Amino acid sequence: MIIQLSNGVSTNELTAINDTLKKIGYKGTPVQTQKAQYIVGIGKREFDIRELGTLPGVSDIHRVSDDYKLVSRKWKVKRTVIDLGDNVSIGNSHLSIMAGPCSIESEEQIQATIDHLIANGVKIMRGGVFKPRSSPYSFRGLGEEGLKLWHGLAKKAGIKIVSEVMQMSQIESMYDYVDVFQVGARNTQNFNLLDELGKIDKPVMIKRGISGTIEELLSSAEYVFSGGNEKLILCERGIRTYERSSRNTMDINAIPILKEKSHLPVIADPSHGIGLREFVEPVALASIMAGADGIIYETHQQPEKAFSDSQQTLDFSESERLCNRARKAFELRENF
Amino acid sequence: MIIQLSNGVSTNELTAINDTLKKIGYKGTPVQTQKAQYIVGIGKREFDIRELGTLPGVSDIHRVSDDYKLVSRKWKVKRTVIDLGDNVSIGNSHLSIMAGPCSIESEEQIQATIDHLIANGVKIMRGGVFKPRSSPYSFRGLGEEGLKLWHGLAKKAGIKIVSEVMQMSQIESMYDYVDVFQVGARNTQNFNLLDELGKIDKPVMIKRGISGTIEELLSSAEYVFSGGNEKLILCERGIRTYERSSRNTMDINAIPILKEKSHLPVIADPSHGIGLREFVEPVALASIMAGADGIIYETHQQPEKAFSDSQQTLDFSESERLCNRARKAFELRENF
Amino acid sequence: MIIQLSNGVSTNELTAINDTLKKIGYKGTPVQTQKAQYIVGIGKREFDIRELGTLPGVSDIHRVSDDYKLVSRKWKVKRTVIDLGDNVSIGNSHLSIMAGPCSIESEEQIQATIDHLIANGVKIMRGGVFKPRSSPYSFRGLGEEGLKLWHGLAKKAGIKIVSEVMQMSQIESMYDYVDVFQVGARNTQNFNLLDELGKIDKPVMIKRGISGTIEELLSSAEYVFSGGNEKLILCERGIRTYERSSRNTMDINAIPILKEKSHLPVIADPSHGIGLREFVEPVALASIMAGADGIIYETHQQPEKAFSDSQQTLDFSESERLCNRARKAFELRENF
Amino acid sequence: MIIQLSNGVSTNELTAINDTLKKIGYKGTPVQTQKAQYIVGIGKREFDIRELGTLPGVSDIHRVSDDYKLVSRKWKVKRTVIDLGDNVSIGNSHLSIMAGPCSIESEEQIQATIDHLIANGVKIMRGGVFKPRSSPYSFRGLGEEGLKLWHGLAKKAGIKIVSEVMQMSQIESMYDYVDVFQVGARNTQNFNLLDELGKIDKPVMIKRGISGTIEELLSSAEYVFSGGNEKLILCERGIRTYERSSRNTMDINAIPILKEKSHLPVIADPSHGIGLREFVEPVALASIMAGADGIIYETHQQPEKAFSDSQQTLDFSESERLCNRARKAFELRENF
Repeated sequence: MIIQLSNGVSTNELTAINDTLKKIGYKGTPVQTQKAQYIVGIGKREFDIRELGTLPGVSDIHRVSDDYKLVSRKWKVKRTVIDLGDNVSIGNSHLSIMAGPCSIESEEQIQATIDHLIANGVKIMRGGVFKPRSSPYSFRGLGEEGLKLWHGLAKKAGIKIVSEVMQMSQIESMYDYVDVFQVGARNTQNFNLLDELGKIDKPVMIKRGISGTIEELLSSAEYVFSGGNEKLILCERGIRTYERSSRNTMDINAIPILKEKSHLPVIADPSHGIGLREFVEPVALASIMAGADGIIYETHQQPEKAFSDSQQTLDFSESERLCNRARKAFELRENF
Repeated sequence: MIIQLSNGVSTNELTAINDTLKKIGYKGTPVQTQKAQYIVGIGKREFDIRELGTLPGVSDIHRVSDDYKLVSRKWKVKRTVIDLGDNVSIGNSHLSIMAGPCSIESEEQIQATIDHLIANGVKIMRGGVFKPRSSPYSFRGLGEEGLKLWHGLAKKAGIKIVSEVMQMSQIESMYDYVDVFQVGARNTQNFNLLDELGKIDKPVMIKRGISGTIEELLSSAEYVFSGGNEKLILCERGIRTYERSSRNTMDINAIPILKEKSHLPVIADPSHGIGLREFVEPVALASIMAGADGIIYETHQQPEKAFSDSQQTLDFSESERLCNRARKAFELRENF
Repeated sequence: MIIQLSNGVSTNELTAINDTLKKIGYKGTPVQTQKAQYIVGIGKREFDIRELGTLPGVSDIHRVSDDYKLVSRKWKVKRTVIDLGDNVSIGNSHLSIMAGPCSIESEEQIQATIDHLIANGVKIMRGGVFKPRSSPYSFRGLGEEGLKLWHGLAKKAGIKIVSEVMQMSQIESMYDYVDVFQVGARNTQNFNLLDELGKIDKPVMIKRGISGTIEELLSSAEYVFSGGNEKLILCERGIRTYERSSRNTMDINAIPILKEKSHLPVIADPSHGIGLREFVEPVALASIMAGADGIIYETHQQPEKAFSDSQQTLDFSESERLCNRARKAFELRENF
Repeated sequence: MIIQLSNGVSTNELTAINDTLKKIGYKGTPVQTQKAQYIVGIGKREFDIRELGTLPGVSDIHRVSDDYKLVSRKWKVKRTVIDLGDNVSIGNSHLSIMAGPCSIESEEQIQATIDHLIANGVKIMRGGVFKPRSSPYSFRGLGEEGLKLWHGLAKKAGIKIVSEVMQMSQIESMYDYVDVFQVGARNTQNFNLLDELGKIDKPVMIKRGISGTIEELLSSAEYVFSGGNEKLILCERGIRTYERSSRNTMDINAIPILKEKSHLPVIADPSHGIGLREFVEPVALASIMAGADGIIYETHQQPEKAFSDSQQTLDFSESERLCNRARKAFELRENF
């Protein structure tokens, strides 16, 4: 159950609401986001919803049977739109394209990518500065310095930045330099990190876990929302299965299911979803047709020279073609 | 290695070819299909391809490193087109739509479905008369009688029939009444059935196993082809994964991968791929955008009254909408 | 619901029972096995069990809520014991060991194996004469001739034979030469084959499907039982997962779960369960400790020269060590 | 390649070794643990090992082809033994039993558990004070205060403590109160946490990821080792598969495979491995027979009243029986 509170609800009103919750055997968790104030009620007993709904300070009340509550579509009529400023937004009836290298490598590489994005009307650049690598002996990214360099160039060009945060202590140092914090597939259930991201006011894009369920992804988003941050984006990036012809199995089903279950925007990552450069485009187009609000993919001026795994990285001409086709597919879908 | 033989290759020529194969340490399997004659050579040693290529009776020769040979795209420039007669074909630069109920139930149901298909320009009807059911106490289909009834009505209407064959002994009794034999997901590796289907001259559509790999699907097709039947269609229908929000996980990746690896047409089954009626359409459209040559889905005049599992069955208005959108998506893709 | 009928139940009594079933809205399936006569009732309505239980001709009646009925442990107090004759039985408080090559190759190989088995007190020999191979170009087994040769030698030595049947037409030709028909992992849901095996009176061992669930394995056994054959054995042989360090993932959990759910004996196949020769022993011992009634594994006098995949095949000294340790582990378990 | 350095290797000697590494095209990573000093060389070129092996300051050198190096068994003859003090050690030819509740709840609960452990000769108690919960509305544990309470009681009783650490900032506050830091299945690839745990001198037990591979588990251990901490324990706790009859699928294969690949001790967690209380015992015994150095399981004086998920929690009499049987199974295995 979600209780939406009125602006300026008083302490006395809150006490009365909580007393009523207690009386009907519900546990109430207060949630204060940048946008509004809620109480999430957890319990099983049936009760007359008017008991609560008519109390002063309650602006609306919704039963939500899902395990996740605030990210559910059951209580929120409108879909969430994430505004990044400068007329860049996500989830707003147009296609969001996020592209860029796996790892940020150098000023030259950043600038080449920005030029390519601008030429193709792409407003959001992806890139890693802290790289989660399964081997401790692999390149781990340029770190904070790389991020600052990138931010300077991107800001000048009007390009927004999405980049992965791997631990709580990085949130503060990254804060001024990213527009969207990305939570990677290995951290989808790093609950302490999620708690911390709930305390900030910048958008967070949560990738589905490597073998995470759709329910788990939504519960992870619930962590951030209930922590206070409503600016959330979900990302399907393929799951681990027995099939070995592709690196992961893009779960195309997850896209319409997530859109049905949640009011949050859904981005598809075809690069990780299939892991094979030559097939990134068809998987990206399929994801759009399945209902994605946008795509995120890897591109590099010379994929074969990229620092990181380049098997799934498009060169700029492939990226250009994908942008064009993606927009056409999106347009067809919106005009159905 | 695939050795394509000339029309009218002589016994002496064959002997010479086989002797050369033996000399270079290759095992040769003769393959005689309705269309042509081949020898598939299996071996590992390096050799001068001219030794074989210049022999009388050899029209062409191709190295194929895949485990499957005849279904590989490495030796065949043109994609396979399956001609069902009456201007109905599969794989021929247009979208094939196959629709119909899970189970054939009655004359009334068949006729209603046919009328719906004709009204929407659909030329191929699916339906089961022998149903593989995991419980022995479930409805197992109308059997041969149902098939004959169906065939009579479909023929009159100019509609082609695709239906599942479950065992060798059914091939003969079904032969006159189906246009495409379907091998179901539980029989993908029923090698004796595949062997027998290699001996007939009707098209065979092989569904991917419930947890089958892409390689296994291609090897199963190789069974039928090497048995003598080149008229093959592959079908992706979702795989079994840990995810429980959908019945199966549609492997969208498999579509471009199969198209790349094989010259055979690829059909997508979104009904089984997601198993949830409300999401069949987006998954179908995604599959087309990913490169499928066609779709097969379940529709019924009253899904909630269908004999079989109806959770994934569209009603006729949903089916009509899907047909329209599928054609638009296909047209967009072909005109990229 | 399972209705056990009295010996010599009369037609009138049967009619009365079926009428009552119909009245309470249940569908009754008559089952006549070599041992007894049952009616399996499928329905959902609550009813007073005495209505049925007091009818003449009914010897006992049991509610079984599982989807499978006759193989459930809920109605049968005693566990099933399979008697192969000559004091060889399966499921009877002692450890069954089944060992032998992947494929039957030659008289010499058969005799060497038999000698090894006898020296180690093993009474049941496994071996394939019809081999399911994913590639049509692989060795497919010696066929019926190989089976006859094997049977002659085994009979003389007092060794029982378990061998895979791949299709209905082989049942008859194999019947005189095998003691246990094995249904392979690719045929677990070949329902026509299961139906036919229900009609014979020889034991059937059903392997779990390559990605089959425990429920599906039990439902497949239900096919055979409801077809008339109570002599059933279940076999856990590993499932397909994402893990690539082993060929399959032995589902050790399945062993106690199957023993809890069903009254049928459960055999473990560590050779396929892990697929790596050096680890067959620990997995076999683990399976016994988890509750298996026996083990089936591959052994060959010269594994590296075996016709078939020998990565999981023990040599005779490894096999001897396994037999000794397996018996000690079983003894410990039985004396807990 | 692992270069073991002599005690007191000089700066000049190190320079010469690194120069030689550079010359042969290898990247060297210096590793300084509490026990010894190494250089891990990563590269592909073939070279004469004597070039390096004869340099002053090099005590030994080993080629290790695995992706993980220091945790590989290829360079270390003896298995690692973890000494917890007071004659409690792990990996030392005797069975380690770790038992206790899912969550630490109260003084009374802790004391009851300690009494039960002592009565059964168990020296290590498990329990969570920071609980990773997929829903933000669930009980998250007693935190640091609970840990201090627990530590006081355990210390008095001579019981060692293993408890999960969820983030870097908890390491310091937990340090004085735990004997083994546990890294949970959701944090197996939390590389920053692993880095930090490399800097301390207390043992770390790493659980396999929920869908982690064996390779990934070893690579995670490599992170901690290469960070400086050799005191490592691996834990198999079941993986996520399609099978729904059990909560996870215990990967029994992983136990002998991990023992073969690594010199680290391997603990089995049957509670999470199957997730069903009635089957924890057979899975525990199976794990021991497969080669585990110990088991960790959940027990509670009143499982049905436990704060956390109690479906897999043994009561004390079940726990007592398991201890007895586990020791017998271990003894049998050691005496084979």
